[in-house]
Amino acid sequence: MDLNFVRKLIKPAETKIVLLVVDGLGGLPRESDNLTELETANTPNLDSLASRGICGLQQPVNPGITPGSGPGHLSLFGYDPIKYQVGRGVLSALGIDFELKSQDVAARGNFCTIDENGHVLDRRAGRISTEKNEELCNLIREIELPGVDVFVETVKEYRLLLVLRGEGLSGKIIDTDPQEVGKKPLQPKPLSSEAEKTASLAKQFLDQASEILADHHPANMLLLRGFSKKPDWPTMEDTFGLKSAAIAPYPMYRGLAKLLGMHILETGKTVKDEFNTLTDNWDEFDFFYLHVKKSDSAGEDGDFERKVAAIEEADKEIPRLIDLNPDVIIVTGDHSTPSLLKYHSWHPVPVLLWSKYCRVDNVDHFGERACMTGGLGPRLPAVDLMPLALANAMRLEKFGA
Amino acid sequence: MDLNFVRKLIKPAETKIVLLVVDGLGGLPRESDNLTELETANTPNLDSLASRGICGLQQPVNPGITPGSGPGHLSLFGYDPIKYQVGRGVLSALGIDFELKSQDVAARGNFCTIDENGHVLDRRAGRISTEKNEELCNLIREIELPGVDVFVETVKEYRLLLVLRGEGLSGKIIDTDPQEVGKKPLQPKPLSSEAEKTASLAKQFLDQASEILADHHPANMLLLRGFSKKPDWPTMEDTFGLKSAAIAPYPMYRGLAKLLGMHILETGKTVKDEFNTLTDNWDEFDFFYLHVKKSDSAGEDGDFERKVAAIEEADKEIPRLIDLNPDVIIVTGDHSTPSLLKYHSWHPVPVLLWSKYCRVDNVDHFGERACMTGGLGPRLPAVDLMPLALANAMRLEKFGA
Repeated sequence: MDLNFVRKLIKPAETKIVLLVVDGLGGLPRESDNLTELETANTPNLDSLASRGICGLQQPVNPGITPGSGPGHLSLFGYDPIKYQVGRGVLSALGIDFELKSQDVAARGNFCTIDENGHVLDRRAGRISTEKNEELCNLIREIELPGVDVFVETVKEYRLLLVLRGEGLSGKIIDTDPQEVGKKPLQPKPLSSEAEKTASLAKQFLDQASEILADHHPANMLLLRGFSKKPDWPTMEDTFGLKSAAIAPYPMYRGLAKLLGMHILETGKTVKDEFNTLTDNWDEFDFFYLHVKKSDSAGEDGDFERKVAAIEEADKEIPRLIDLNPDVIIVTGDHSTPSLLKYHSWHPVPVLLWSKYCRVDNVDHFGERACMTGGLGPRLPAVDLMPLALANAMRLEKFGA
Repeated sequence: MDLNFVRKLIKPAETKIVLLVVDGLGGLPRESDNLTELETANTPNLDSLASRGICGLQQPVNPGITPGSGPGHLSLFGYDPIKYQVGRGVLSALGIDFELKSQDVAARGNFCTIDENGHVLDRRAGRISTEKNEELCNLIREIELPGVDVFVETVKEYRLLLVLRGEGLSGKIIDTDPQEVGKKPLQPKPLSSEAEKTASLAKQFLDQASEILADHHPANMLLLRGFSKKPDWPTMEDTFGLKSAAIAPYPMYRGLAKLLGMHILETGKTVKDEFNTLTDNWDEFDFFYLHVKKSDSAGEDGDFERKVAAIEEADKEIPRLIDLNPDVIIVTGDHSTPSLLKYHSWHPVPVLLWSKYCRVDNVDHFGERACMTGGLGPRLPAVDLMPLALANAMRLEKFGA
C-alpha cells in the first residue's frame, strides 16, 4: 500500500508493537519425517501465541522472488522493497557499521586478479584472507583525490568498501566489474552528467590502486560496483507515527533500521541479551524490532538441527515478551532459508500476529503447513503487516466517512 | 509483476518446465451429486501429483473477469493480459494459421445483410454456411487496391479475415460494425493521422466488396472490426531465458505461442499425440506448453460427461510426463468453462505445481474445493505462476542483497 495513504490515517495511541524477526524462519521438510525446521522445533510458547492469534504465510516480495535481507526487512517495515531499493555500496557500508553521510558515495569493491594484458582472471582474487585484505587496504587507503575524502574499509575476504566524501557527488556510475573472466575491467562511466565528476574521481582512484597493487598478485586489481548514496527515505516516525527502536546484534540490520530513522539500541550477542535490551528500554518506544540471526546462518549452512535449536532459543524468550504486556506482537522472518537449499528461498514465511483484537483463527501450532490455513492467508504481502499491526494497536483512523 | 523486474533476475539453468493447459478446466457442481467435472473425473495421476505438489486456484485476470483464450493464456505465460492485448484482427489471423508479417494490418470481417437503404438487417447474414463463405471470399478476393496486397480468408460461417500488406499501414481505425441492426455500417475512420492511408484503403475495399456482394443476399455486405497489427512483444526467451516450445493442435493457441516467440512443434490431434511430440522433442527445449482442447469444447457444449472424459484422457498421460523427469510441472486451465454455463466463466481455475522444492501442502486431490485450501491460495494471480515456475526451476537470482 502507498505509504502516503497510511500516513494520512495515523492517529496517536499509547500502544506498543513488537516485531520479532527470526531470520530465514521458513523452511522445507526434511526427508526423514517430512517436517520443516519450524515444524520440528519444540515451540510451546509460539504455539500458544499462535493459538491465541492469527496466522498465515507472508510473501516478502512477489511469488517466486527470493529476497535478500534488505528487501525482506523493508517489506516487514511496510516499505515496498521494489520501490525502496538500496544500492550495494550503501549496503556494504551498513554491513560494517560505517557511518555514511548524506553526500557520500559508496561502492562495493572486490580485489581481483588480472593478467599481463589487463584481463580479469579471477573476480575474487583467489578469495584472499581477511588479513591480507586489511594489509592491502592499508596501502590503498593512502590514495588522495582532489576535493574529496577517501575511505577504504575491509569487509571480508576479497570484499572491501570504498567511500568518497565531498560535495556534488553522484552514484550514477556503471559497475567496473565485467562479471566475466577474460574481459578487461570496465571504466567507471557516468550514467548521467551529474555523475561526471564522481566517475572521474573513481577512475583516478582505480588508476592509482592499480599501480599500488601491481606487485600483489593475486590481488593485483580492484573491481567496483553498486555506486550509491544513502537514500533519503521517510522515517518510521514520519510514516507511521512510531517512535521505533531496533535491537539487532549484526551491523547490516542495524544499518537498515537506521535508514528508516529507527533508534539503534546497544545490545549483546545472544537472544537473551536482546530481550534484556527490550525490557530495559520498554518505556521509551512504541515499536521494537528484534532480529534473531542464528536461524538464517544455520539454514545457510544446511544445518537443520542448528536451525531448529535457534528457533527454540527464540521461543524460550516469548514469556518475557508477553510479561511486558505489549499490544501487538508479530513473529515472522524476513525470508525463508530452508536447510535443504542452504540459501534464501522464494517460499512464503510463517507469520503470527497477536493482539487483544486480532480475529483468532483455528491455527494452534506455529509451522508452515499449519499457517497455510490461517486467517492471514497463504500469501499475505509482507508490506501489509505494518498496517495490520497499526490497526491492531488502535493507531489507524477510519478511511472515509 | 513487471516483466523487466523478472528479466533482471533470470539466471541460466539446465532445468525443464512443463505447463499443461487443460482448456476450460474449472467447472461448477452438477445438481445430482454436487461435484464439478474435475471432482467427478477419475484422475489418480493428477491426484498423486497434487498430493506431492502445491495446489490452489488461480485467477487469469481479476476477480469477476471472464477471460477469452488470449488473455487466459497470456497470463499463464507470465504476461499481464491487460497490458498485453491482441487485436481481434490479429487473433482471427492466428486462429486460421495465417502467417502475419510485421507490417500487415488484419481485420475481422462479418458477412452481413443490409436493406435497400443500406441499414444493417442482420449482422451475421443469417449465419451463412462456411461453404457459402468460401464461395463469396473467392469473389471479393479479386479486389485490388493501390500499393498493397489484399488477402481475404474464410474463417467459419459468416466470419472472414481481411489482411492488407504493404508499407506504412496502421491498425488505428474504428470498427465499421455499428453493433446494432437498423443502422448503417460506419465508415472506417482513422483514429490518428498515421492511419489515414489504411482507412482510405479499407474504404475502397468495402466499396468494391459492396458492389460485388450486392446480388448475394443475405450476405450482401461486409462489416470490419479489430483492425490491428501483430504486436511486437518480448519473447519468452528474452523475458525468461527459456527456449520454449508449444504443442497445440489448434491454430489459435499455436498463434498465441508464436507471438511470444515459442517454437511451434508439429503434432497430431489427440492428447496422446501431443505427449508423443513432447517425448520426441524433450532434449531440445527448456519450457513446454501443451494444450488440451477437448475439455473446453465439451464445457461449451454443456456436456458434463464429455468434459469429465477429456480430463481423464489428460490424466492418463501424466505418468509419461513424469517419466521424462521434468523439474517443474504445472497443470491448470486458461479459464473455467462450467458445463452448467456452456461458456467461459470468471471462476478461478484449479492449479497444481510440482517440483522437488515446492513446499507441499495438505491437498491430496485435484479438484476445485480441494485446491481452495492449498498453499497457492484460492486466488493466485495467474501471472505469478511463471515466476514461481522459474524459482522452482532454480532459474531466478536473489533480489537485492
